[in-house]
Amino acid sequence: MRWSQTHIPTLREDPVDAEVASHRLMLRAGLIRKLSAGVYSYLPLGQRVLLKVIAIIRQEMTRAGAQEVLLPALQPAELWKRSGRYELMGPELIRFRDRHGKETVLGPTHEEVITALVAGELRSYRQLPLNLYQIQVKFRDEPRPRFGVIRSSEFLMKDAYSFDRDATGLERSYQAMYEAYQRIFHRCGLEAIPVQAETGFMGGSDSHEFMVPAEHGEDTVVRCACGYAASHARATYAVDDVASAAHDDLQPLQVVDTPAKHTVEQVSAFLGVSPAQLVKTLIYLADGRPVAALVRGDHEVNEAKLQKLLQCQALRMADAATIERLTGAPIGFSGPVGLKGVALMADHAVVAQRNMVVGANQPERHAIAVNVPRDFKPDQVADIRYVVTGDRCPQCRGPIALEPAIEVGHIFKLGARYTQALNATFLDEDGVQKPLVMGCYGIGVTRIIPTVIERHHDEAGIRWPSAIAPYLVDLVPLNIRHAPSREAAEQLYRALTDAGVDAILDDRDERAGVKLKDADLIGFPLRVVISEKTVSASQVEVRVRATGATTFLPLAEAPQRLSRLIAF
Amino acid sequence: MRWSQTHIPTLREDPVDAEVASHRLMLRAGLIRKLSAGVYSYLPLGQRVLLKVIAIIRQEMTRAGAQEVLLPALQPAELWKRSGRYELMGPELIRFRDRHGKETVLGPTHEEVITALVAGELRSYRQLPLNLYQIQVKFRDEPRPRFGVIRSSEFLMKDAYSFDRDATGLERSYQAMYEAYQRIFHRCGLEAIPVQAETGFMGGSDSHEFMVPAEHGEDTVVRCACGYAASHARATYAVDDVASAAHDDLQPLQVVDTPAKHTVEQVSAFLGVSPAQLVKTLIYLADGRPVAALVRGDHEVNEAKLQKLLQCQALRMADAATIERLTGAPIGFSGPVGLKGVALMADHAVVAQRNMVVGANQPERHAIAVNVPRDFKPDQVADIRYVVTGDRCPQCRGPIALEPAIEVGHIFKLGARYTQALNATFLDEDGVQKPLVMGCYGIGVTRIIPTVIERHHDEAGIRWPSAIAPYLVDLVPLNIRHAPSREAAEQLYRALTDAGVDAILDDRDERAGVKLKDADLIGFPLRVVISEKTVSASQVEVRVRATGATTFLPLAEAPQRLSRLIAF
Repeated sequence: MRWSQTHIPTLREDPVDAEVASHRLMLRAGLIRKLSAGVYSYLPLGQRVLLKVIAIIRQEMTRAGAQEVLLPALQPAELWKRSGRYELMGPELIRFRDRHGKETVLGPTHEEVITALVAGELRSYRQLPLNLYQIQVKFRDEPRPRFGVIRSSEFLMKDAYSFDRDATGLERSYQAMYEAYQRIFHRCGLEAIPVQAETGFMGGSDSHEFMVPAEHGEDTVVRCACGYAASHARATYAVDDVASAAHDDLQPLQVVDTPAKHTVEQVSAFLGVSPAQLVKTLIYLADGRPVAALVRGDHEVNEAKLQKLLQCQALRMADAATIERLTGAPIGFSGPVGLKGVALMADHAVVAQRNMVVGANQPERHAIAVNVPRDFKPDQVADIRYVVTGDRCPQCRGPIALEPAIEVGHIFKLGARYTQALNATFLDEDGVQKPLVMGCYGIGVTRIIPTVIERHHDEAGIRWPSAIAPYLVDLVPLNIRHAPSREAAEQLYRALTDAGVDAILDDRDERAGVKLKDADLIGFPLRVVISEKTVSASQVEVRVRATGATTFLPLAEAPQRLSRLIAF
Repeated sequence: MRWSQTHIPTLREDPVDAEVASHRLMLRAGLIRKLSAGVYSYLPLGQRVLLKVIAIIRQEMTRAGAQEVLLPALQPAELWKRSGRYELMGPELIRFRDRHGKETVLGPTHEEVITALVAGELRSYRQLPLNLYQIQVKFRDEPRPRFGVIRSSEFLMKDAYSFDRDATGLERSYQAMYEAYQRIFHRCGLEAIPVQAETGFMGGSDSHEFMVPAEHGEDTVVRCACGYAASHARATYAVDDVASAAHDDLQPLQVVDTPAKHTVEQVSAFLGVSPAQLVKTLIYLADGRPVAALVRGDHEVNEAKLQKLLQCQALRMADAATIERLTGAPIGFSGPVGLKGVALMADHAVVAQRNMVVGANQPERHAIAVNVPRDFKPDQVADIRYVVTGDRCPQCRGPIALEPAIEVGHIFKLGARYTQALNATFLDEDGVQKPLVMGCYGIGVTRIIPTVIERHHDEAGIRWPSAIAPYLVDLVPLNIRHAPSREAAEQLYRALTDAGVDAILDDRDERAGVKLKDADLIGFPLRVVISEKTVSASQVEVRVRATGATTFLPLAEAPQRLSRLIAF
């Protein structure tokens, strides 16, 4: 490609509204442009990277035995009502009525559609296993789209759906995808960590997320040197190791005034205790039944864990009126002492605490020196919170580390979650009609690009891994008006192109500084400079972007030597 | 690919709601499945064909110098308001509000988005010309989706947008696309006829549609042996050749009762004259000004022609109240005689007629033996109707033919239609800021598939052109339980796959009849039968789907000979 014939609008300055490196660099290198909040266009360089990522995904999915399909974005709302997710998805699901008044949604994912597709067509165990995948646009009305294409409202996803006879088959299909995902991310230049994860609104029994550690990642992975790895939502802690304060003397319970103190920080500062000494009492309704979740002031309730513990369908925070009715006090002053008609669920760290501070169930008052079981008895003690730094590994009791990360893939064992709801059954060898056993497997295709950039960049710009670089070689005649440079560059360009090397010729009539800055900013793996000086020495200067190593090659041998360099 | 490992749900019976061959065959061959009205999923075989079509398009677009991008489906309504198409598009444009209340549309096309994208980034004449294209999903809320993926609400389009300095540049860009389109359709197995076309809601000055004649095509092409070719909307007729009845004697005008006769057919039958003898008087409002369009009873008004003639922004049929006020009679009895305050626009065929029948501007009455200029004088005589069989070619006066056809591509010279509205200007060499001169170029990517099938099928099924066949070779061991057949087939499959030939091995444990019927139905270009008989003769039987020609090849030479056959 000749630079002059494509459209690479690089920017000299950092865009003001780009918070993270990948977002800044994707804009500056001319890969993407914003159309509106969370909605981006891919320019020619961005689209080239995207197509290379897609090609890798296709190869690995084919290798894993999956078949490509293409499913619609327009989906009947009725399907989502049948699966129960029409309500569950909330405002993230884009909904409208078509001209005939039919309720339609824009697919944020395709479990419903694929299940309806195979229902009635996968009739016999002999047609199984089957894995169908697509690379297709998804729509989610993000509350706070951010970081460019890391979290956007329209994005490309690779979503695969496996269908098996039984759990053993699903395990095999799941494992094949697990391995394919590791190969895909590795080939794109990412070391993605598979971590145990929550299934969330997808449902199903088991799940892994593929996480790439990154400074500004919105997710958190919890890891231990022993190999334990889980998403923040799913991670647990070693239980009997939290009883740090268990030997303090019990003091007598008192109720004290805490006027106009509302937050954990305000109350603990006012009373001169650490936030860990406080216990938060959060009132929920679990399928309508009032429940109090007790966690330390420096901990956060994990509602997924709480919901699993309570085995309820719907878990939501109680409203102000309900809280006032149950506790006799406004929000912010709930406490477990003397609380009637509310099940008390306490985190392990709560019962390990002595002389804690809790709400007094009276306006503007707290109870201090509260102790279990003297002052209240939890109905259940369990892990109901997010782990924090300082917790110990549930596998080996070693120290765990929390790292920010970007989720690039997520795989789920769905079982019969959708096939039962949508009546997708098959006739098994034993003559019994059974629901298909399903898995689903997603990759954020467009998200891979900024994630790669987060991992591969420096002050000057991007450093593309060769496999997904927009072009492998940037040929830079420093002065295009110098005929011998121009001719040498043209010749080299033709030789590389004929050899099938993905090269771009910077044939712009621009200053050398502009061209070299753009080369670094965009981050082509190899930069080949042709200048008056190199031409007079019958050489070219080759620089490897990733290492900065520079070498000179004889002009005549350059095409062969470059082709060899690229095959690393 | 092994048949047992993919998903090809062929159907024995014709689906009840499929009206045309391509729709029936796409369903029966397991290429697509309907999700809802006008919305389809592509199964593995359909997706393979689609990817092959896309690969051809990409090659030819690259060859023509276009750069690939990817633009969003979610578009701010505000852009469409600025271009004036928010109203113009009507209910075909899918609209909704996002969670923040922002009006959003689903892109039915991308002129607005691409123009906004380049505005401010294409700043200098030195960056021109530029042609950006994408292959992307489009949404149109079709009033009557039909014929499977020929007319659907969600479809893939290849849309390209060229930007030039001036009309000369646009002409060059347009020509390059014109030629690329001919190559693309030809390579897909289609002979598409480029015809002069209307620009419609796209605007601009000039346009060509690429039409493939097909029995059930929804469009019509008008052609003459001299080479004249135009869309039905755009076609004109030779003017001074229509005065067929001009020598009848003039008879005295009379007004007669035509009780309860409303249609052309009813009135002409009642009066004993041919429908051609009647003249229809249709009342329009052109930017609010009343206009009567007069065409023969057997002709239809072409509103695009009428609007161009009147040079009005908005042309719509008058409502019943307006008609009654202007003519003094209800709808169905309008006529030009004595009509005041309404401009009379007559088609050439009307003034060539003598003793015509028109509405009398009185309820249930018509005027007979009406003549021009004795009884009324048109304000303007022009071509304001669709041509019909019997009209003569505007280029050579030869007979024209009207043929049903499917539109597979449409190219437009847009000029400054969008760049002016969205303020996309560049600094020209002469130092003057000018609007970019734009062209746009569309191909209905998914529509190519049924169009190819309409042209290439027989009673038994599809006959794929090799370039876009889902697989080139279908290897059919008739009896998979016969070990020597199975082994010969496996060996041949491996040899072909290793040689890079796109082969499928029908390894199903099915009856021979089922396999052979599926082979014909899906229509792989080459079918290779391996049976007990052929194996014992160390042969395979090769059948060319397109011609039905059958030949036997020695088993040992089959891979080489087949590879050669494929390279035709």
